[in-house]
Amino acid sequence: MAYPGYQGGYGGYGGQQPQGSFGGQPPQGGYPGQQPQGGYGAPPQMMGMPGINPETQRIFQVVDRDRSGKINAEELKGALVNGKGQNFSDTACRLMIGMFDQDHSGTIDINEFDKLYNYINQWLNAFKSYDRDQSGHIDEGELSSAFQQMGFRFSQDFIRFLVHKSDPKNHREISVDQFIVLCVQIQRFTEAFRQRDSEQKGIIQISFEDFISVALSCST
Amino acid sequence: MAYPGYQGGYGGYGGQQPQGSFGGQPPQGGYPGQQPQGGYGAPPQMMGMPGINPETQRIFQVVDRDRSGKINAEELKGALVNGKGQNFSDTACRLMIGMFDQDHSGTIDINEFDKLYNYINQWLNAFKSYDRDQSGHIDEGELSSAFQQMGFRFSQDFIRFLVHKSDPKNHREISVDQFIVLCVQIQRFTEAFRQRDSEQKGIIQISFEDFISVALSCST
Repeated sequence: MAYPGYQGGYGGYGGQQPQGSFGGQPPQGGYPGQQPQGGYGAPPQMMGMPGINPETQRIFQVVDRDRSGKINAEELKGALVNGKGQNFSDTACRLMIGMFDQDHSGTIDINEFDKLYNYINQWLNAFKSYDRDQSGHIDEGELSSAFQQMGFRFSQDFIRFLVHKSDPKNHREISVDQFIVLCVQIQRFTEAFRQRDSEQKGIIQISFEDFISVALSCST
Repeated sequence: MAYPGYQGGYGGYGGQQPQGSFGGQPPQGGYPGQQPQGGYGAPPQMMGMPGINPETQRIFQVVDRDRSGKINAEELKGALVNGKGQNFSDTACRLMIGMFDQDHSGTIDINEFDKLYNYINQWLNAFKSYDRDQSGHIDEGELSSAFQQMGFRFSQDFIRFLVHKSDPKNHREISVDQFIVLCVQIQRFTEAFRQRDSEQKGIIQISFEDFISVALSCST
């Protein structure tokens, strides 16, 4: 069953999860526990981490440059590199820290870091599976297939819009950090839309304040 | 005439601009040309700039730390301090660079910088007028008055939501950089809503893809 797009109605997501489990988590493909293969710029110092163990502690300490016992978005950024050899964006790092930062301090501790590390690895693996030509980035065709695999049914115009938004200069490719931000945002907006679309028509009525509230709440 | 809120309908904004000219620009109050008074952390090196002239060039060169002839968000951040003594957020700096960055390079040249400088000064002055107790930040009551002056009619719940979003830890105060981001986002969402609300009912029907497109386009 597919998520709605312009063309269709809902076509049935009544209580069902889309393929790939897009509910706030990266799509699962039997890879939890797998190690990232590199190739997407996963930082060497973050390889080989099975769970919370002494190795985790070591990695945490490498990322925690100021030895504060907490990792902030800037430190995370310094440890993550995408397929273009660029550090992850500020937006991506703030988003991911925010997802695991329970007390809104802007930082995560080692337990939260352990969860974040697994989360990132799942995204790296998902991204790798969608990047069919193993270029290190996702193009329009690959993005379209990726969303189809996740259970969405988006128009080509919409897919093109997403690529343009992520790559405003060249309109061509989406890096892994951009892909994570995009998927998390779309998941949030989908949930907000679904809550208001009780009849599953693919169209909702929404008031001005509610509209702004949703948009501000779900954006990064 | 007021912008819609939960309570009211539109009450008439048919073609009219709200008080304060919120159409993509900071609210005007007779201050263009005025110099910022400091007090909100306007950087000393950015004071005293009447227009594009040798002084502008000097300020530009101070902000342009790597002498590239262009200013990026990071350099802008290094030059702007809010009333709490913190540098402006990455989000605010990226947003403002993006508004004047014609070629999507992520940087602005001296001509674009001149416009940005005026833009920031207008915001600083507007913020100062809304910050009635001159605390250097805006609280819930001041924010409510500010939006009323701009012609919006928001519910107290919505105002509270905005403060919580901007200050997720303490739920109390909004700094000038947060205020700029908030106002620009709300202006964008208002325009998007208005375009879809042809009958000015304060409620729109919107499809799934359009909903996500608007939300992604207008967010920072």
